[in-house]
Amino acid sequence: MTANPAAVTVIGLGAMGTALARAFLDAGHPTTVWNRSAAKAAPLVAGGAAHAAEVADAVAASPLVVACLTTYDATREALAPASCDGRTLVTLNSGTPAGARAMADWAAERGARFLDGAVKNVPEAVGKPDTLLYYAGDRAVFDEHRATLEVLGGDTQHLGTDPDLAALYEYAVGGTLLPALLGFFQGAALVTGRGLPASSLVGHTAKWLEMIASVLPRMAEEIDTGNYREPSSSLGLFHEGIAYDHEVGAESGIDVSWHAPMHDLLRRAVAEGYRDQSISALVELLRRPAR
Amino acid sequence: MTANPAAVTVIGLGAMGTALARAFLDAGHPTTVWNRSAAKAAPLVAGGAAHAAEVADAVAASPLVVACLTTYDATREALAPASCDGRTLVTLNSGTPAGARAMADWAAERGARFLDGAVKNVPEAVGKPDTLLYYAGDRAVFDEHRATLEVLGGDTQHLGTDPDLAALYEYAVGGTLLPALLGFFQGAALVTGRGLPASSLVGHTAKWLEMIASVLPRMAEEIDTGNYREPSSSLGLFHEGIAYDHEVGAESGIDVSWHAPMHDLLRRAVAEGYRDQSISALVELLRRPAR
Repeated sequence: MTANPAAVTVIGLGAMGTALARAFLDAGHPTTVWNRSAAKAAPLVAGGAAHAAEVADAVAASPLVVACLTTYDATREALAPASCDGRTLVTLNSGTPAGARAMADWAAERGARFLDGAVKNVPEAVGKPDTLLYYAGDRAVFDEHRATLEVLGGDTQHLGTDPDLAALYEYAVGGTLLPALLGFFQGAALVTGRGLPASSLVGHTAKWLEMIASVLPRMAEEIDTGNYREPSSSLGLFHEGIAYDHEVGAESGIDVSWHAPMHDLLRRAVAEGYRDQSISALVELLRRPAR
Repeated sequence: MTANPAAVTVIGLGAMGTALARAFLDAGHPTTVWNRSAAKAAPLVAGGAAHAAEVADAVAASPLVVACLTTYDATREALAPASCDGRTLVTLNSGTPAGARAMADWAAERGARFLDGAVKNVPEAVGKPDTLLYYAGDRAVFDEHRATLEVLGGDTQHLGTDPDLAALYEYAVGGTLLPALLGFFQGAALVTGRGLPASSLVGHTAKWLEMIASVLPRMAEEIDTGNYREPSSSLGLFHEGIAYDHEVGAESGIDVSWHAPMHDLLRRAVAEGYRDQSISALVELLRRPAR
């Protein structure tokens, strides 16, 4: 907690926005909140937040305005009636790098200083010492507000000055989520189909995800050097696994068809001569636009 | 290390089989090795292993025979010339639950006691205190050889007496690997396309995988209770992300087409009314055979 916690405005009170506002309140920051449907503000007001009925008043209330709406478009639409001149605007919505650049341009046109960021965790983790948030944009703006932003998560990082870097990393890192979860759900379908609980998979899968994390430094090095020729896991091993997907699908009656394009990537990589090279060589195929 | 390390035979000296044999040697177990191409035995023989030119001699050399070949078929083919009567055979290859059951029948017909297992890690992790291996089959056989098997990894577990449970969990847990790696490779294609190293993704992705592990207990509970109505991550949020995949793919020129069937699953789930429910409701769709 800083000695004199700075005033903060939070725009957008979905699950994540609510968690952000609550973290600021818990850290003693004078916190103003705004949401299109005002009802969502009530629990925060009970916790000490000020509620602004008009977005212009919400933005006027604090030098630092944190917007957590669904998209950049929704953010611009919500902020349209407000004067952002002289404010520091921080966006924490999902979006593409191009969307983040457009948002930065919009903020500059309105005289606002701007950071785009990403909360790399669930709402329940906001405010915890290990929770990662990263930001991109003007370094001086980040440094000025760093102590306040760290209230949202102890692992608060500045990725660089290009305003689209947080969106880029958000997507580059976050792209693992749905595929990994689907892998877990498929496993759950499989074990529950045998009368065993999905909970019996949790510990094993958590350990498996640790294993996956442990191989990433080497895979990144292979990708950065372009040398796939000393594999720890060969592409051919995964290629041989294609048959298992079909057999297990047929045996258990679960739908494994979402693997089909992954199988296609493996087959194409083998056809291109990568069988005995590292599975990370798949990056070479992903670098080409879809056919 | 046990007081009198038991003799062990390792059949199959690929990267994993070699790591297994080395772990037994390092722990002081008299270790006999066999491989179809004998050259692979040389480094192990230099480390104290006995090499059997004939598989029958290798099997005869030790009461415990650990086979680490590519498939159950390859294991039966390799072991065909050997008398397995009275041996304990442990298979550590990949394969389907049906394959494990057939292997168990084969072992029983030949008078061998049998465990099927899985090494849930890379060869480099074999022998470490935290490395997970699990086994399925006769509990008494597991208990008898437990101390020896723990040489391969300190986290050695018995899943149950059905001989196909290790193969079932191997697939149920391991099914996360390729999808998660592809997510990482896609991120690497994205950041390297901007001139940033893939290594800059590693720390963030490792933390992201921890986040994914942290949500699995709740998702498993949702699946086990069938109650998806109090989501921490709603299916609708992922459904909204479909557009980002297409936009980022178009903007960056990387191939995101492997997401197509995942998008299809999300769209079907929304059409079935799961939009405001948990992403874990996808398990309900996976439980149906592919259309």
